[in-house]
Amino acid sequence: VPQSTREPRSRDIRADMSVECPSTKKSYVLDVSVVAKPYLAEIADKIAKKFGKAMKPKMVGVLANEDPFAKMYAKWTKKACERTGIVYETLECKRTDLEDVVYDLNENKNVHGIMVYYPVFGSFPSFMAGVSMDSYIANCISNEKDVEGMCFTYIQALYQNRRHLKNKKGLEVKSILPCTPLAVVKILEHLKAYDSKEKLKGKTITVINRSQIVGHPLAAMLCNDNAEVFSKDIDSMFVFKKDQKGRGRLCETEILFEDALEKSAIIISGVPSKGYKVPVKHIKPGTIFINVSSHKNVVEEELLKKPGMVYVPKVGKVTVAMLQRNLLRLYEGYHQ
Amino acid sequence: VPQSTREPRSRDIRADMSVECPSTKKSYVLDVSVVAKPYLAEIADKIAKKFGKAMKPKMVGVLANEDPFAKMYAKWTKKACERTGIVYETLECKRTDLEDVVYDLNENKNVHGIMVYYPVFGSFPSFMAGVSMDSYIANCISNEKDVEGMCFTYIQALYQNRRHLKNKKGLEVKSILPCTPLAVVKILEHLKAYDSKEKLKGKTITVINRSQIVGHPLAAMLCNDNAEVFSKDIDSMFVFKKDQKGRGRLCETEILFEDALEKSAIIISGVPSKGYKVPVKHIKPGTIFINVSSHKNVVEEELLKKPGMVYVPKVGKVTVAMLQRNLLRLYEGYHQ
Repeated sequence: VPQSTREPRSRDIRADMSVECPSTKKSYVLDVSVVAKPYLAEIADKIAKKFGKAMKPKMVGVLANEDPFAKMYAKWTKKACERTGIVYETLECKRTDLEDVVYDLNENKNVHGIMVYYPVFGSFPSFMAGVSMDSYIANCISNEKDVEGMCFTYIQALYQNRRHLKNKKGLEVKSILPCTPLAVVKILEHLKAYDSKEKLKGKTITVINRSQIVGHPLAAMLCNDNAEVFSKDIDSMFVFKKDQKGRGRLCETEILFEDALEKSAIIISGVPSKGYKVPVKHIKPGTIFINVSSHKNVVEEELLKKPGMVYVPKVGKVTVAMLQRNLLRLYEGYHQ
Repeated sequence: VPQSTREPRSRDIRADMSVECPSTKKSYVLDVSVVAKPYLAEIADKIAKKFGKAMKPKMVGVLANEDPFAKMYAKWTKKACERTGIVYETLECKRTDLEDVVYDLNENKNVHGIMVYYPVFGSFPSFMAGVSMDSYIANCISNEKDVEGMCFTYIQALYQNRRHLKNKKGLEVKSILPCTPLAVVKILEHLKAYDSKEKLKGKTITVINRSQIVGHPLAAMLCNDNAEVFSKDIDSMFVFKKDQKGRGRLCETEILFEDALEKSAIIISGVPSKGYKVPVKHIKPGTIFINVSSHKNVVEEELLKKPGMVYVPKVGKVTVAMLQRNLLRLYEGYHQ
């Protein structure tokens, strides 16, 4: 789970007014607890009824950086897992031992899911970027235990818009989608941005962040679901369009960022910087704004002054629910 | 082949004095043409005698960035290939089409090797680095056609110090090593830095650059061959040491860069910056200095003032010879 979603449990309770005022123009803030709840209930129920007597699904979170935020996030994840009956263990190791720790966990039959808190080596600046040690580590994790969907097999399936893979028994199993992008999809479904048949057809979305851990897969997924998605990063703009094979693909665009914002019914921002704020004057009334950064990428008061806004300040609770859901999927697909 | 080795053919002829003065203390500059020559002769001979009537080995270089330097390097590679009898084709495409172009080449039975000129997407700064689009593309290339040894399978084999893999027929084939690091090894062999039995045992080496395309695999390879290797990047130092399983592994170190230089009999520098110069005052007499950057990372005149220095200003010719050698290895291992 990327840095952007590392957030401690929220203590302020915000009203979920999505049910009370769907058609009015009143702006509101969505606490995503309501989105996570049914997924967590389903997971808890499955574990209690199906896996009650068998070996419980177990996930290991590997802490190989010195990041206190990662430690806090690991504690938070452990608590969330315990509530549904998933066994969660934190394993601290030196970054120089990380690769071998991953191989040991791959072999360990009592472990069904592995996650690594990134960045580990990614935090060192390098003379040449491009191919990274962290992505090497992500590929060392067995497909059968990759709860975060970060290995090449799952990322490729996502970019090819293939939803299923085959396990060793030749049975079709669902591919694993990365947790934060998947959480955003679930939040949009909750907000009824999805049409049951056409999904996101006709919708324009802007995603600010094109990293391989959040923004790029998210934009591809939303485009796979029929949206037109503008993709903004530090000094580049692209657009994701669906190709003839039905895959959301990166395409060139000349559009300006401000114009993309003004066209968008949904804006998702994941800029890991305290100072960054999306300019509210370019956001149209009735927009859904989802913040996936641990910093607030918009001035809330200013945003909510406009009519019909839905502001989602944090997605972490749904991200952790998706992490657990991915673990169950792996458990059922590969470890039974 | 990384940016650092993109250099046009050298026109100045430098004397190779490694044979004439091995035991004297005179410093000299090595033109690596002499290192490349026997490999190129062997490749040409093999193609003429073994593959003369069959389909000639063919490599496609994909240009998906707008980098004029990459274009020049592609032309240079084409000429080098034509001299040995390898068919080399350049394919220009939009970066947004790159993934599908790679898949088409994977399927094309007339093509035995694929190389992509990086960085493509890597040249865009991103809000979160770590896992990159360029490394995704590198993994899209079939193992059977990956002439640069950049896909996960080959990098993992290197870091695990496994020299062989099995092909689909179950036959053992040699793994593919990345071209620039392999070129450095061949240059060191030429300079008799390798002992026929103990290889680099007892030697201390400093590698400046820890990118996944040059410095990191190079340091691991030299350590696999028994050297102690200090690894320097922008603001971090590590050391590669051999573990109990015989693998060169990244370890923590407290050593200062200057002290590492002073301990080193071999220094390899790959800093892609015009202004960067390794401080000569910390280099001891009799050191081999290999420059793998397209910029000169040392002041030549100053370096050569010290006794017994061997200065290798460019490695590109050997890199391209290794690229061709890798192609033949793939051709023989997978395409016959």
